[in-house]
Amino acid sequence: MAEPGVFEVIYSTRAMRRLKPDPIPEETLKKIVDAGTRAPSGGNTQEWAFILVRDPDLKRFLRDYYWNTWQQLRAKRMIPAGNLPPAQQRMLNAAADLAAHLDEVPVILLACAHQEYTPLAAMNNPRANTIVIHGSIFPAVQNILLACRALGIGATLTTIHCFFEEALKQKLGIPDTMEVAAMIPMGYPQGKFGPVTRRPVEEVIHWDRWGQQKG
Amino acid sequence: MAEPGVFEVIYSTRAMRRLKPDPIPEETLKKIVDAGTRAPSGGNTQEWAFILVRDPDLKRFLRDYYWNTWQQLRAKRMIPAGNLPPAQQRMLNAAADLAAHLDEVPVILLACAHQEYTPLAAMNNPRANTIVIHGSIFPAVQNILLACRALGIGATLTTIHCFFEEALKQKLGIPDTMEVAAMIPMGYPQGKFGPVTRRPVEEVIHWDRWGQQKG
Repeated sequence: MAEPGVFEVIYSTRAMRRLKPDPIPEETLKKIVDAGTRAPSGGNTQEWAFILVRDPDLKRFLRDYYWNTWQQLRAKRMIPAGNLPPAQQRMLNAAADLAAHLDEVPVILLACAHQEYTPLAAMNNPRANTIVIHGSIFPAVQNILLACRALGIGATLTTIHCFFEEALKQKLGIPDTMEVAAMIPMGYPQGKFGPVTRRPVEEVIHWDRWGQQKG
Repeated sequence: MAEPGVFEVIYSTRAMRRLKPDPIPEETLKKIVDAGTRAPSGGNTQEWAFILVRDPDLKRFLRDYYWNTWQQLRAKRMIPAGNLPPAQQRMLNAAADLAAHLDEVPVILLACAHQEYTPLAAMNNPRANTIVIHGSIFPAVQNILLACRALGIGATLTTIHCFFEEALKQKLGIPDTMEVAAMIPMGYPQGKFGPVTRRPVEEVIHWDRWGQQKG
């Protein structure tokens, strides 16, 4: 099978939340993470780690925390209760189903980054540090999402683990020096990869200065 | 010309720092940003903006701040003065040359993100907010780097603007509610796109738990 084109993949990589429980071959998982590691990192330090959780007990642990957090966020109205426009309602329903059944996906990938970018550590500029750290892990995350898509694996970038990160790190033995930047449930999709809907590019491009939308 | 394959592009997208001054067609720039907007964002809110700086005076402004910051970081030894292993020394030299001549590239792209993810704003959890915000802009940045590569444009992800972000925002009229996550100089490359060197994937994969490196 020929390799799919890069724009074809970029334009059809979308959050896939309804996933089959079928296992993903180890070679496929390695290929996905390897694509992740081709992304840039500050000073090419590559201070990242990718945990692939397949163990049923650990997946249940992640599901329980994730689902509890989901319910708390909904109780506090940080997540809408319903009555959304149809497309958003479908997205919310799929996200809620994923949260409730997270342990049924075959693999949950955790993308981890060092909390400190060593060359900046002495500068006492937490904002610069955070930008370098996140700018050194989320590009890898996007490569991972694209590689999943290219290989027919559904995936979605989630960040709700932030609310239980300490418990998560303790359970999986993740060192204090690392942070978990993203949690990505992965599996063969139940539905189809379709095009994503986005605002027209003219609305988000500014030429030279903010607000100048003619080139 | 057939579209290049997604893995071919992922594996040959590297920081290109020696760039020609030749202009990049507007349609190419739009195609690159459009690829960026296909990336995911928290709740698909797409609260991003991409400023394409081509104006010579504004590029000189960026160059002056960037180069001054570079020299300060070097004086404080946050950037090494030299005497590095050959590959790292070449990277450092190219980065220093880019800093000194930043105004000579045809386009400098600024990737901007909202500082606050509205659904989380009331939660007083700055860490969760930052993860969502950066997880909603750096995937777009990676799509932009891949699209540049696919279209034969050299680019590199830089973050040194963090040290003069306020001056930058004021000069370009960027609202207080936005942050500048990345600065990407772009241009046709003087050299060739080659493969990137990375640690073996086995070193960065952990199975189920931290430190468990056998699948």
